[in-house]
Amino acid sequence: MAVTLEELARLVGGRVIGDPATEVSGVCPADEAQKGRIAFATGPEFVEKLRGSDASAVFVPEPIDDLEIAQVVVEDPRRAFFQAAALFKEQSAPAPGISDRAFVDPTASLGAEVTVFPLAYVGAEAAIGDRVRIYPGAYVGRGVRIGDDSTLFANVSVGEGTLIGRRVTLHFGASVGADGFGYLQEGDVHVKIPQTGGVVIEDDVEIGSNTTVDRATLGNTVIGAGTKIDNLVQVAHNCKVGRNVILVAHSGLAGSTVLGDNVLLAARSGTKDHVTVGERSIIGGMSGVRKDLPPGSKVIGYPAEDHMLWKRQRVFLAKSGELVKKVRDLEARIAELEKRLGKDD
Amino acid sequence: MAVTLEELARLVGGRVIGDPATEVSGVCPADEAQKGRIAFATGPEFVEKLRGSDASAVFVPEPIDDLEIAQVVVEDPRRAFFQAAALFKEQSAPAPGISDRAFVDPTASLGAEVTVFPLAYVGAEAAIGDRVRIYPGAYVGRGVRIGDDSTLFANVSVGEGTLIGRRVTLHFGASVGADGFGYLQEGDVHVKIPQTGGVVIEDDVEIGSNTTVDRATLGNTVIGAGTKIDNLVQVAHNCKVGRNVILVAHSGLAGSTVLGDNVLLAARSGTKDHVTVGERSIIGGMSGVRKDLPPGSKVIGYPAEDHMLWKRQRVFLAKSGELVKKVRDLEARIAELEKRLGKDD
Amino acid sequence: MAVTLEELARLVGGRVIGDPATEVSGVCPADEAQKGRIAFATGPEFVEKLRGSDASAVFVPEPIDDLEIAQVVVEDPRRAFFQAAALFKEQSAPAPGISDRAFVDPTASLGAEVTVFPLAYVGAEAAIGDRVRIYPGAYVGRGVRIGDDSTLFANVSVGEGTLIGRRVTLHFGASVGADGFGYLQEGDVHVKIPQTGGVVIEDDVEIGSNTTVDRATLGNTVIGAGTKIDNLVQVAHNCKVGRNVILVAHSGLAGSTVLGDNVLLAARSGTKDHVTVGERSIIGGMSGVRKDLPPGSKVIGYPAEDHMLWKRQRVFLAKSGELVKKVRDLEARIAELEKRLGKDD
Repeated sequence: MAVTLEELARLVGGRVIGDPATEVSGVCPADEAQKGRIAFATGPEFVEKLRGSDASAVFVPEPIDDLEIAQVVVEDPRRAFFQAAALFKEQSAPAPGISDRAFVDPTASLGAEVTVFPLAYVGAEAAIGDRVRIYPGAYVGRGVRIGDDSTLFANVSVGEGTLIGRRVTLHFGASVGADGFGYLQEGDVHVKIPQTGGVVIEDDVEIGSNTTVDRATLGNTVIGAGTKIDNLVQVAHNCKVGRNVILVAHSGLAGSTVLGDNVLLAARSGTKDHVTVGERSIIGGMSGVRKDLPPGSKVIGYPAEDHMLWKRQRVFLAKSGELVKKVRDLEARIAELEKRLGKDD
Repeated sequence: MAVTLEELARLVGGRVIGDPATEVSGVCPADEAQKGRIAFATGPEFVEKLRGSDASAVFVPEPIDDLEIAQVVVEDPRRAFFQAAALFKEQSAPAPGISDRAFVDPTASLGAEVTVFPLAYVGAEAAIGDRVRIYPGAYVGRGVRIGDDSTLFANVSVGEGTLIGRRVTLHFGASVGADGFGYLQEGDVHVKIPQTGGVVIEDDVEIGSNTTVDRATLGNTVIGAGTKIDNLVQVAHNCKVGRNVILVAHSGLAGSTVLGDNVLLAARSGTKDHVTVGERSIIGGMSGVRKDLPPGSKVIGYPAEDHMLWKRQRVFLAKSGELVKKVRDLEARIAELEKRLGKDD
Repeated sequence: MAVTLEELARLVGGRVIGDPATEVSGVCPADEAQKGRIAFATGPEFVEKLRGSDASAVFVPEPIDDLEIAQVVVEDPRRAFFQAAALFKEQSAPAPGISDRAFVDPTASLGAEVTVFPLAYVGAEAAIGDRVRIYPGAYVGRGVRIGDDSTLFANVSVGEGTLIGRRVTLHFGASVGADGFGYLQEGDVHVKIPQTGGVVIEDDVEIGSNTTVDRATLGNTVIGAGTKIDNLVQVAHNCKVGRNVILVAHSGLAGSTVLGDNVLLAARSGTKDHVTVGERSIIGGMSGVRKDLPPGSKVIGYPAEDHMLWKRQRVFLAKSGELVKKVRDLEARIAELEKRLGKDD
């Protein structure tokens, strides 16, 4: 759907230079510009790319002379561009409706303007909020509750006992509410501990493709509001993840991990079970946290330690050849001294 | 479904203090107690939580005075609690039946009391045992055989050539029997080696969400009886995994790895291809095994080595600053001695 | 379907010893030989296994005396065996056809001899090439284009904005075209950057089970022709992966990574965002690349460095106990010298 520059300028709080009735229907990068789309420019190198380009308009921080295409002048062109992108994306959303090729259990309740695509499954007694979208192949287990404006993309699985908040997004193949990994060892045999708890996903959480969040043994695994989880991340049973946490791809939390608000786990990092990480801590890439960390920690390595110590150890190792040489040299000098002084008597 | 305390006491081998006709319909943690549910207490701190709580009953190791709620006295309250949890979970299982919204190939054979949910797929010549449950979005390829009492949760994929034993559980999105990763290099081009083997999953195996187990090039990839695999684990083609092995989340086995019985791979650890790990070995977290290991090994690091050596190296690195300082100090002392003795002649 | 040895010999450029009308219908390993199948032997140890075995024929490099079963003599028996395996696999492919239990949007276009299985989903305006196969539970989003002879196995998800080439294979649960992981931080809140770009998968690419390839913020994430990706790999938004690259299981590319042609990432290795890795570089297992690498690099460790340096550091650490002992010894010898010389004056 096309939007006029006048409308866009109103949305982003900017002003139009050129024809305000110019219509655009999408965004484009400055170096892959397309007709009917709007780009953004934050510096001279962008502007060069736009001269003679096919873009129909551009967000700029200040008016640019001699540019053929229309401009929307706005304080933060990058942010305005993202706002426009979000608008166009929202406009291309599917029309609501419940496909008769989906399976919706008669005991499930659906809010207003819900979209259930063909081949999606909504189980008994599930409660689906307004404007929720459930894509093909998504599975909503018995009694699951989903808040308004949430989206389950294709092939997502949400197990019994899960409570999902508002404006939550689950990407392709994400798994929420499968059994946690808990066994009692009896001799050589691993006897399953029934996982009867649930999962609570609070508002505004995003969970990446093929990421897994397991249900608690008892009580709930919790993902705090505003937390964003990347692809292929593991959140084990009984974890309590704070608000606005970032879990980057391939990171993992062992059972009963507690993360404070605003913690960041970089790619491929993880925690031992029952560890507590204080708020605003940063765990470096490929690191493993084995003990509790106070708020504001910045650690890396395995076992994870203060990042300055870790860096010093890297430098030490890089120079280890010199150290070995120096010790060998000292040894020779001492031998020489001993020789000159003769045998001890 | 509710159960009386009398019935529960019989199940777990305990005795009731209070009204044996009291009904409970689920379990709950002591600190999130709910009416109609039974908790467990193993020590004084639990008992405090239960005073005045909403729980209807509690498993205890010895009678507790002055507790308002009914008690079931049993030797191991935690174990009894898990037994009760398993009972309630079993009771809440879906009623068997083949949905007419599922696709079941007419040449597939189904045992007694099988459950096939809407939107599940069972391919040609598949053979499904008694009481098997196949959830929405699960895919059973041509000719796959599944033993009695196994469960395939939503969006699981099981490829042609797979043989699954009894009481096996595959969690959301698990992938069993996809092609192994094998190529012949011809110049710069990677020519696919056809993967024509299969996968054998023996009895009582559990496979976590979004875990992948690839089919063999020839012969079979094998997961031994009683082995438990966590989420997001990779088992490559031609691996032979022993019995009662534990593979924790994000661990991975390269092609043709052989694991003895009762081996444990901690989170994020892995093996090089064609490595053999002796039974009862423990591979530490974030470790990579690059050579064969005898039975009972306990290794960590990359390349993985004896865990005591690894710990000593961590201590060495932690003290590396002192070592550098000490060498610098020795250097000064030697220089001083050399100065005092004068030039060598 | 059975094939005569005469036909097989023609396919692989070999000649038959024995009855050329002998029929085989599959391949088998020499040590698990089966009637009606053909094995291969490259050396004497294979031949021993075949004496008295059930195999109906064998590929050999030279004629073998006194073997009861038919032989196909060919320069490279292993390669011939793989060619035969590929032939039998192709023969067992499903018959083309569009199931009326699939959902195919009326605005989608389908090429010739396409197979769409029951419970697969093909969205609006999708364009599917000739002989494409789409298995149960696979999801093809709006406007996705798929080239001739590609295969989407069960429960694969392909999002809007994805362009897939010819002869591409996506294994169980692979996710292509989900949103990249991009946020603007505003105070404590992570504001989503709309991901409006796409994904381009070029010809002859293979993507493993439950692997994730995210769509670009703008422009495209690109996987070059002939690249092979194993299971559980993460390719973040905006990455540009070259041709004939190998990404082994659990490896991961952070956003905007650029990989030259023929790069190899071993298992569990990864790159920092915006890193460029020159062609034909090899990244060792469990390694993390944090800076640009020239062509032909061979690195390992975290941060990844030249593999020879890394090995030297491993040796240094292994001998660190000796070093500490030697320094302690030098200290004692210096103290002794100092004592003999008396206090400095």
